[in-house]
Amino acid sequence: MKLLRYGPQGQEKPGLVGDDGIIRDLSGVVPDITGAVLSPEGLAKLAALDVASLPLVEGTPRHGAPVAGVSKFIAIGLNFSDHAAESNLPIPAEPVVFAKATSCIQGPNDNVVIPRGSTKTDWEVELGIVIGSRASYVEEDEALAHVAGYVLINDVSEREYQIERGGTWDKGKGCDTFGPIGPWLVTADEVGDVQALGMWLDVNGKRMQTGNTATMIFDVKTIVSYLSRFMTLLPGDIITTGTPPGVGLGMKPEPVYLKAGDVMTLGIDKLGRQQQTCIAWEKK
Amino acid sequence: MKLLRYGPQGQEKPGLVGDDGIIRDLSGVVPDITGAVLSPEGLAKLAALDVASLPLVEGTPRHGAPVAGVSKFIAIGLNFSDHAAESNLPIPAEPVVFAKATSCIQGPNDNVVIPRGSTKTDWEVELGIVIGSRASYVEEDEALAHVAGYVLINDVSEREYQIERGGTWDKGKGCDTFGPIGPWLVTADEVGDVQALGMWLDVNGKRMQTGNTATMIFDVKTIVSYLSRFMTLLPGDIITTGTPPGVGLGMKPEPVYLKAGDVMTLGIDKLGRQQQTCIAWEKK
Repeated sequence: MKLLRYGPQGQEKPGLVGDDGIIRDLSGVVPDITGAVLSPEGLAKLAALDVASLPLVEGTPRHGAPVAGVSKFIAIGLNFSDHAAESNLPIPAEPVVFAKATSCIQGPNDNVVIPRGSTKTDWEVELGIVIGSRASYVEEDEALAHVAGYVLINDVSEREYQIERGGTWDKGKGCDTFGPIGPWLVTADEVGDVQALGMWLDVNGKRMQTGNTATMIFDVKTIVSYLSRFMTLLPGDIITTGTPPGVGLGMKPEPVYLKAGDVMTLGIDKLGRQQQTCIAWEKK
Repeated sequence: MKLLRYGPQGQEKPGLVGDDGIIRDLSGVVPDITGAVLSPEGLAKLAALDVASLPLVEGTPRHGAPVAGVSKFIAIGLNFSDHAAESNLPIPAEPVVFAKATSCIQGPNDNVVIPRGSTKTDWEVELGIVIGSRASYVEEDEALAHVAGYVLINDVSEREYQIERGGTWDKGKGCDTFGPIGPWLVTADEVGDVQALGMWLDVNGKRMQTGNTATMIFDVKTIVSYLSRFMTLLPGDIITTGTPPGVGLGMKPEPVYLKAGDVMTLGIDKLGRQQQTCIAWEKK
């Protein structure tokens, strides 16, 4: 099942995409796609719907992030050994955890704003985990039961803010628009083996990142179990799980960063694709 | 004005404390104390109420955290030069930013759970800023206009998770119960000069921390302005601003950490006091 939120920013409605690729409206069934509807029971109720009887959505509306009311947006760093190498950092012995401000979450195809004065804005295609039920101190063999589904994420990052400004990475990870998510939340049953998904990202049509979730250092069940020992994961929480090599920071002979007008296109098998245009910061 | 939330965990109601020290119920005025009621207009509406006409709350109910629906719980590290010294870390050139998971927020007097297997759980009395209106790229001279008020916070921390487990500090800052907030949100007008507040924390009746917000390296207006360049601050967001010396990590000749049964009592001038008993982790 593919769940989504569609419509103008701040006015998104819940929907789903049937096997025919058409968006159908879920407003009559649930108020929104939030953690409350992502429990096993909530998803079973949606799966039991007669899709053909749901109202069709006309045209090609904007996609919002497919989950609303996200309480935590957590990120795992350096989770691909070849990306750790390009970042000149050692392979971590245990997951590297940081946070993205939830205020950076946006639709998958919304513009990405280069922060004021930024010269090191970078891209990162990533697999996102969406939590379906409360997880506290869960073992690895029970971790996947707490996952509602998966999403495509661009973990947009400002490398100067992240690395050169003191303190933790959080400073370079949560700028407004740095969290495009979607187009859909694909439920875990429809994804199947989450550790065998191809990943890619292009900038201005040139392939920059190619990877596969098979080469993650810490896999999904390990990450969920591990994080649940440090914080309680709540329904609707999103965990982005690290990026394969090919980010701007790792380019040779010089890093390459985003500028206004650049276009990022990215995708993960079964999770769809995103496209963002970079724009300059302007005072609102 | 002192705003609060009272009642059993998860069922808190909004209230305020009048000059007579008595809790009065605000349920008939606002649904809860959330960012939506903390705008200058929202606070003006509450300030205009005839306090004496509000329903009295009988007895001595539990206090919850005074703000509900917090979207971001951000923290500033090493913001007192003498605390940086006791942590064997240099005085930062710009604010050190990390995140506390919002799921760690709890009432000011609720028990603090020592995480499973933890041996280095520590205390930190801190001044918390509560945002009242959206702040993005605000200058220092306009920053305080975005502040609704202030709260007392115990930035409970697990030093092994924070420092020895790889990655960023976030891992040791967001465990469940690590964010006691309250008893009240005191509006900025009632606090007056926020950079002249005495701070203290006792463990088992012994004074461990003594400080004053006058010696913060980065003051409130600097922190709000600075953070607003890296993320948009939203109404109800909470920023905890760093701790003075005297934490367990800094004790000589050996660090001293919390164990089940220990009692922390802490306070900041004008912002009230908290008391938490430490308990051992148990599987729920």
